[in-house]
Amino acid sequence: MLPLLTRIDHVGIACRDLDAAIARYEATFGLQVVSLEVNEEQGVREAMLAVGTSGTLGASGDNLRPGYVQLLEPLGPDTPVGRFLARRGEGLHHVGYGVQDIGQALDAIGVRGVRLLDKRPRHGSLGASIAFLHPADLGGVLTELVQAADPA
Amino acid sequence: MLPLLTRIDHVGIACRDLDAAIARYEATFGLQVVSLEVNEEQGVREAMLAVGTSGTLGASGDNLRPGYVQLLEPLGPDTPVGRFLARRGEGLHHVGYGVQDIGQALDAIGVRGVRLLDKRPRHGSLGASIAFLHPADLGGVLTELVQAADPA
Repeated sequence: MLPLLTRIDHVGIACRDLDAAIARYEATFGLQVVSLEVNEEQGVREAMLAVGTSGTLGASGDNLRPGYVQLLEPLGPDTPVGRFLARRGEGLHHVGYGVQDIGQALDAIGVRGVRLLDKRPRHGSLGASIAFLHPADLGGVLTELVQAADPA
Repeated sequence: MLPLLTRIDHVGIACRDLDAAIARYEATFGLQVVSLEVNEEQGVREAMLAVGTSGTLGASGDNLRPGYVQLLEPLGPDTPVGRFLARRGEGLHHVGYGVQDIGQALDAIGVRGVRLLDKRPRHGSLGASIAFLHPADLGGVLTELVQAADPA
């Protein structure tokens, strides 16, 4: 079986105060914010901080993209991240892996006994197409697939 | 300030049954085990599964290393991962970031208000030198620094 995952794209971290979390990651590790977005569909305000040097983007160089720390502040208590914070507190929320073709990846994974939370890709950070897989089928880990935006 | 982190090295995932977790990640994503170790000091049996293609190892090519899914099964209930499972269940346990020089990184971070769980590096997977940072100072995220083994 061909490997589906090209890299660890990001770790998603739930926080109560996005600005404070950004300040902490900047001050501790020297990371820099490359994107700051509100995603109404997912109910979050989020920042992407690049880890490592940026490389060539695109199919053949997909694993040269940097990884990201994704900091997530809920837009309200009745959102997925808001409920996560109420239940578990701040901390690691999910992991995102890069894939070359998210449609093909969802088709392949859907027949392997892992439930798809998104049957079709949605809009993610930095213009990516994303989809989540059910944590109950992956040892409690909320798992996201990420097809990076076309650099063109 | 120079960025300290070169890449996302791995995500650490706590599981009750390592063999079942390996089988799930192999079957779902086509990942392969590159290392299977018992770390008595940390009280775990663990597997490293490579995500993405392997690249040149070494200082200048550090960000070309693959990332890893690290699956962790506790050696007993009275271990850090055993207590984590009892408290929170299976799931994301920590994130590990690559650094070029772990001694320098610990010196730098220690004066930035983040407590070091390891004042000196310890032995990690694949011959790496590792150290953990206090989750309470990083928004609930247990954070590991990883200096990869010298390829020579």
